[in-house]
Amino acid sequence: MSYTRYQEITQKAADLNYAAAVLGWDQETYMPPKGYAARGRQLATLATQAHALLTSGEYGKLLQELSSVPDLTEVQAANVRMRLEDYEKAARLPDEFVAELTQATSTALHAWSNARKQGDYSIYALELRNMIGLKKKQAALYGYIGHPYDALLDDYEKGMTTSLLDGVFERLRRELPPLLAAIAGGKQVEDSFFAQHFPRETQWGFSLDVLKAIGYDFDAGRQDYSEHPFTTSFAATDVRVTTRVHENDLASLLWSSIHEGGHALYEQGLPDTQYGMPLGAPASLSIHESQSRLWENCVGRGLPFWKHFYPTLQARFPEQLGGISLDAFYAGMNKVQPSLIRTEADELTYHFHVMIRYEIEKGLMDDSIAIEDLPEIWREKYRKYLGIMPPDDVQGILQDVHWSHGSFGYFPTYSLGSFYAAQFWEEANTQLPGLREQVETGIFKPLLHWLRVGIHQFGRRHRSEELCTRLTGRGLDISAFMRYATEKYAGIYHVKI
Amino acid sequence: MSYTRYQEITQKAADLNYAAAVLGWDQETYMPPKGYAARGRQLATLATQAHALLTSGEYGKLLQELSSVPDLTEVQAANVRMRLEDYEKAARLPDEFVAELTQATSTALHAWSNARKQGDYSIYALELRNMIGLKKKQAALYGYIGHPYDALLDDYEKGMTTSLLDGVFERLRRELPPLLAAIAGGKQVEDSFFAQHFPRETQWGFSLDVLKAIGYDFDAGRQDYSEHPFTTSFAATDVRVTTRVHENDLASLLWSSIHEGGHALYEQGLPDTQYGMPLGAPASLSIHESQSRLWENCVGRGLPFWKHFYPTLQARFPEQLGGISLDAFYAGMNKVQPSLIRTEADELTYHFHVMIRYEIEKGLMDDSIAIEDLPEIWREKYRKYLGIMPPDDVQGILQDVHWSHGSFGYFPTYSLGSFYAAQFWEEANTQLPGLREQVETGIFKPLLHWLRVGIHQFGRRHRSEELCTRLTGRGLDISAFMRYATEKYAGIYHVKI
Repeated sequence: MSYTRYQEITQKAADLNYAAAVLGWDQETYMPPKGYAARGRQLATLATQAHALLTSGEYGKLLQELSSVPDLTEVQAANVRMRLEDYEKAARLPDEFVAELTQATSTALHAWSNARKQGDYSIYALELRNMIGLKKKQAALYGYIGHPYDALLDDYEKGMTTSLLDGVFERLRRELPPLLAAIAGGKQVEDSFFAQHFPRETQWGFSLDVLKAIGYDFDAGRQDYSEHPFTTSFAATDVRVTTRVHENDLASLLWSSIHEGGHALYEQGLPDTQYGMPLGAPASLSIHESQSRLWENCVGRGLPFWKHFYPTLQARFPEQLGGISLDAFYAGMNKVQPSLIRTEADELTYHFHVMIRYEIEKGLMDDSIAIEDLPEIWREKYRKYLGIMPPDDVQGILQDVHWSHGSFGYFPTYSLGSFYAAQFWEEANTQLPGLREQVETGIFKPLLHWLRVGIHQFGRRHRSEELCTRLTGRGLDISAFMRYATEKYAGIYHVKI
Repeated sequence: MSYTRYQEITQKAADLNYAAAVLGWDQETYMPPKGYAARGRQLATLATQAHALLTSGEYGKLLQELSSVPDLTEVQAANVRMRLEDYEKAARLPDEFVAELTQATSTALHAWSNARKQGDYSIYALELRNMIGLKKKQAALYGYIGHPYDALLDDYEKGMTTSLLDGVFERLRRELPPLLAAIAGGKQVEDSFFAQHFPRETQWGFSLDVLKAIGYDFDAGRQDYSEHPFTTSFAATDVRVTTRVHENDLASLLWSSIHEGGHALYEQGLPDTQYGMPLGAPASLSIHESQSRLWENCVGRGLPFWKHFYPTLQARFPEQLGGISLDAFYAGMNKVQPSLIRTEADELTYHFHVMIRYEIEKGLMDDSIAIEDLPEIWREKYRKYLGIMPPDDVQGILQDVHWSHGSFGYFPTYSLGSFYAAQFWEEANTQLPGLREQVETGIFKPLLHWLRVGIHQFGRRHRSEELCTRLTGRGLDISAFMRYATEKYAGIYHVKI
């Protein structure tokens, strides 16, 4: 009986949060410009109402009660356990602190946006200092055993710690540079053909075909245009993707559409019977990202995929691509070159961007980095790891919105997502005989089914590491990523590594 | 202080209701088919949460308290008075009754839809009987002085009574038939040219131009496609219209777009400073309808309007309309002919459709009509007033969804809207010198401004009748409508009346 009541409140809160997601989707796709102010307050009210439900005394009591009820089913027990975890963690932050953080976020976002517009970091410095102060306080309120940063990492990736990530990035720092050096020794590939005129509608139609082919269910979703691509879910039965289109850059739409499609396949594969419950939610940010990157990179930037799709793409753009061979197209989409902007980086140097942010966040949390040295440290790390220096802070420390949102500990999930993706992909190729040939002929069902059974169906039941172990027989190990990268890029750059 | 708290709760409820409106809009425009189930529960939760806020003990106490606070501003006092009225009325319905009505609505909608599909009224009869029983009970719970139907009418039009409506329809029954007889004596006009092929995109573009011209603010709204046209508001700063397009019927999109545009101009003109408060809401359904019909009929089916727009329309459709003169086009759009379906009726015979429903609803409430005779009474009234008989119930008593929604007392607001529209339009032509010439040259600002100042700015401050008296010097008087109709149709049908 009390489980029913627990489920009722949980799903009501989900209704409100999903409603907010619809309003958010509309804001980024169709909302007229004057709608902003009212939309802001509507979103705030939805968030407050959902929050009130999930932090009420009744809810806390229900969770406590249920956690010692012996005759819950396994599914019920898991649903209770995970919510109790969330509840207890949230309860450690006093209301005034949450309000202060919300206020600081709003101020920081404003300052960040102004600083970018005026190309002046100093406009942002004070707000960032304030935010960092609050994040330290938050870590203290949460409590931690090892490093204060651990308390924040756990917000984005349950159970993630600095010692685990130190190990991951340590290997990366050791193993990636030799690969990059080898690539730099090869002949740089050509990718200028992406920058021709590609009519919008034709691009759009092709991206819809690709989404359909990989298994995205258009009866339970749709693709719309937005400035910044994103995936949003209002239930497993209504999962939408958005993407951008640039008429002078074919690459912009293509992989952002496949990337979001990967996120969406995950959300569409979550168990609909667990609507609004933990077991109906994704496992973690890193697992979510593993799904988008597996489809975007391992599949969508792979030669087999384009063996199937390139002829149709060429047929749609005969003038632009008629003279570009499949090999040249494949090489161009995988060009490796150190660059300043994280979101535009290739799939190898990308991880140094993440690592730089990780090192900085960690250093800020344990005071080994002084806030006033930040822009300089940023430049220095880019010089050290990527061999280039941002000419200004807009292309440097001001490029990401995350810190203004109060998101400290988020960046690592991007890299973890790639590493999990490579490990899953390697395993899929072992477990699914003929996968390569299937992809070459545009058959993606077995792969999607494998992901559904191995990952999607579980919702939040298992943490990232457990999920990975169940599926691949071991926890995260970047060896798979390094093997994937080495084999792929040795081929593209015709170098021996 | 307590006014602030009152406003806070009221606006929070508005946030939730507006959020529901966004979800409703999405459901009719972009939602993928599998999204229905989840959307249904999300909408239900939003409604429940808003309802809980507005029926809480705290809210009732605040309203009671504030209603005797002497130092409220006039605006504040009005906002409190109107909400207290709503609150007290809602409080007369016990929760169990509301639940029963909700359940009955859902069942009736289902049965109605099935009865239509199978063309069998008997599938619906029992549910309709049940619904009528509940509406009688509702009238008794509300309480009334005169006729039980008055208690229901008041739900859709504050202060409306059967004695008032009896007077209106009595005049209509007396004055409209001679006009219709005269028209029938003239030569019937030709409208078959509307039924050519008109490409969708071109129609759409033209309707956008018209909306822009009449003053609809596209920075605070947008037009989208939907099966059934509607207007929805998420704040005065975000008011959206939808419309349908039929490639083989130009008339379908044109006037539905202007009609919805009229509704939207009203919503965009409501005071944004009164977001979510009674003074930020429309005055009534009939006044809302007066705005849509003034623009659709008085303006949009008028000769001056098309003197301006017809050349551009012809330029867009040279093959289809090149050979149709302005006069023929104008006559065709105003063809009068008794018909079976209310929503497809011309602007004269339309009111008999409404009157028939009014008489039936009234008779059901005072038991002068027996439920089992309904289909027969329907046919008989159509024969009597419109001279035609529906060949089946789908084109007869099953045509409207209103009764299944539990909306008894809603229909009259449609006719009231037309009559108010004609009265406002007549007054506008008196007060605004040169209005006709302005419309002939596509200038609509003075008219819109006049409506803004005389109607829109007040929100719900004045009831329909008061608003009408303030603006035109007298309450509703269908003489204006009869003068409008007589002059217009005598011209179109070249008859003396």
